[in-house]
Amino acid sequence: MNSSLIQKLIIPAETKIVMLVLDGLGGLPREPGGKTELETARTPNLDELARQSNLGLTIPVAPGITPGSGPGHLALFGYDPIQYEIGRGAMEALGVDFELGLDDLAARGNYCTVDQSGLITDRRAGRIGTNVNQALSCLLSSIKIENAEIFIKPVKEHRFAFILRAKGLDDALSETDPQKTGMAPLPVYALDEKSIKTAGLVNQFIACAQKALVDQTAANMILLRGFARLPAVPTYQEMYGLRAAAIAVNGMYRGVARMVGMQVLSIEGQSLGDQFTTLENNWGEFNFFYLHVKKTDTFGESGDFDGKVNAIEEVDALIPRLLALKPDVVIVGGDHSSPSVMKSHSWHPVPLLIYSPYVRADGLAEFGERTCIQGSLGIIQATHIMPLALANALRLTKYGA
Amino acid sequence: MNSSLIQKLIIPAETKIVMLVLDGLGGLPREPGGKTELETARTPNLDELARQSNLGLTIPVAPGITPGSGPGHLALFGYDPIQYEIGRGAMEALGVDFELGLDDLAARGNYCTVDQSGLITDRRAGRIGTNVNQALSCLLSSIKIENAEIFIKPVKEHRFAFILRAKGLDDALSETDPQKTGMAPLPVYALDEKSIKTAGLVNQFIACAQKALVDQTAANMILLRGFARLPAVPTYQEMYGLRAAAIAVNGMYRGVARMVGMQVLSIEGQSLGDQFTTLENNWGEFNFFYLHVKKTDTFGESGDFDGKVNAIEEVDALIPRLLALKPDVVIVGGDHSSPSVMKSHSWHPVPLLIYSPYVRADGLAEFGERTCIQGSLGIIQATHIMPLALANALRLTKYGA
Repeated sequence: MNSSLIQKLIIPAETKIVMLVLDGLGGLPREPGGKTELETARTPNLDELARQSNLGLTIPVAPGITPGSGPGHLALFGYDPIQYEIGRGAMEALGVDFELGLDDLAARGNYCTVDQSGLITDRRAGRIGTNVNQALSCLLSSIKIENAEIFIKPVKEHRFAFILRAKGLDDALSETDPQKTGMAPLPVYALDEKSIKTAGLVNQFIACAQKALVDQTAANMILLRGFARLPAVPTYQEMYGLRAAAIAVNGMYRGVARMVGMQVLSIEGQSLGDQFTTLENNWGEFNFFYLHVKKTDTFGESGDFDGKVNAIEEVDALIPRLLALKPDVVIVGGDHSSPSVMKSHSWHPVPLLIYSPYVRADGLAEFGERTCIQGSLGIIQATHIMPLALANALRLTKYGA
Repeated sequence: MNSSLIQKLIIPAETKIVMLVLDGLGGLPREPGGKTELETARTPNLDELARQSNLGLTIPVAPGITPGSGPGHLALFGYDPIQYEIGRGAMEALGVDFELGLDDLAARGNYCTVDQSGLITDRRAGRIGTNVNQALSCLLSSIKIENAEIFIKPVKEHRFAFILRAKGLDDALSETDPQKTGMAPLPVYALDEKSIKTAGLVNQFIACAQKALVDQTAANMILLRGFARLPAVPTYQEMYGLRAAAIAVNGMYRGVARMVGMQVLSIEGQSLGDQFTTLENNWGEFNFFYLHVKKTDTFGESGDFDGKVNAIEEVDALIPRLLALKPDVVIVGGDHSSPSVMKSHSWHPVPLLIYSPYVRADGLAEFGERTCIQGSLGIIQATHIMPLALANALRLTKYGA
């Protein structure tokens, strides 16, 4: 899909689109010949919606490719996940809800221990408690570097997110973790000309961090890897002319949504019902809503087939609240598959449903992997969802005369 | 699709291909759960043909994109409609059956009225009658510009096609229509270096036109927009080794066909039956026939569901005359969908049928949107039709050893 073509065809409209993302939605049967999690779940509301919709399956990145959450979501949002890569450090910072900007360089950090000669004795500092991490991160946050800002955000155990903010940073940097004990942490090397200044700033910070931690017993050194800046993507407003809102509990999804210019709404409470309440309360303010359901993936990744079934049923029970808002277009899909029998993300195409008054409804009886194969959308790249959603929302004008 | 690959694999053959295009073929049900126009139509002949054919659906440009007739037809003819764009001015000239060539620059023209200070009082000159338009266009046609030819072709009411013919023209030009009254028409500006000479010629013409119209009461000025040259496309002979003929009543379709090197046949009469008679009379002379049915789109765009159903049934009744010619390959498809409930072109995939003695027939019971979903062609880009037609006509040799 030529995204500049879409941009040229955008027309103003009052229609509203809801994209409901069940993380890791696609699954596999518990045993050969059985049903998947989605096929097993009792989903009367999704099934009724499916009958009036177009069904299909999406390939998030490419056939056979298992996507992480970053590329999975970028594709759902209509951005080529190979062109726009969100590096590991940036994902770590987004994951703790840090408002990462285009002047920021992020990295994954570990607290570690070194001996008197500076050689690593434990790369994870015995997986220190998160409370210890918080205290150490507070210490490191006070480090001052000229013409730059430093942010240290605890993740959990020994992990933290490192963010360096300054003009003109670049992220072609080598990592400091030698990946084994008995060696000293490596300095950061610039891997291209443009990153030399950045490497200098990071090494300056590491030297300060070493001093700041020298008397600490739990951990007395840090390791940094996965240096990354955010890719500069056109926003939802620029690409689609949409005022978009994100309703997601977890930082990473909030971060990716913020990166594409969505307004990330605050949610009172942590339940799925609270997310739907947020949708209702903000209905008048936006014309695109991304609502992210995390549990389906969590259960998939932990291998809990029944848990994932229940999570899907919980979503189904909330569908009437969504439909009561009378959205013009409803998308139900996932960023990737997470079959509970695999306990991980997978490459399997992901069920997709597109509802609008303008679909040539397939009339298929239920929303499931195998009915989706028969759907009229076919098996499509996930990046095609947004153009289809915009078309169904009558937000695209004709191409050519 | 790599069109140079197709070009390399072309082999001589005596087989004949007929591409029957029902303009705006795809539709939507009149009410939810109902049948589309094609599904409603009684089409015993198309259904019988469908049983012996491959069915599928085509995407003319890209998912969600609603194509104009130009891109819709380029895709059917096997040309990437994003690579080859036919600008609005060129479409206007083709629409009045002007034999636009590669040395021509075309634009959409409006007759308008200006006051004594030259400010526009009516951008459409009160939608003057076509007869008045003809007289004014005759006046403008007599304007002489050095080293260039001018053609002015009336369209209807206040609209005309402007064609400038000269060597080395380019079309990166700004428009003269300020889009509101109370302002003077704008001069044409060259938007790049290569178009400077062309801008000069057009401005020279506009000055002459102003003088020529000064004493006219119905309209005393012109506005030009959508400047465009034809894209230089390889011909059907060059691409496919085909001697191709076009049987179309309306200028625009005749024009696009001429652009790809088809011979545009003259038709005695205006009925669909007359088009089939033309096919019969020229059967021996060509090995590819494009036969264009306009009515399906006309009824779709005017919102006449039953009219579109009748138009499809009228085509169906003529299918035996087509089959009696014993074509080797028959394609039945459309350039885009025009659901009568939307009264416009749309993005919905378009039903497709490919018949030849070499298809692995799907055995589906009828030709309709929902049977096509089950067809073995799947949902394909419309640009794939021509390679499939050529293969079925045994006109493509093996790729590689």
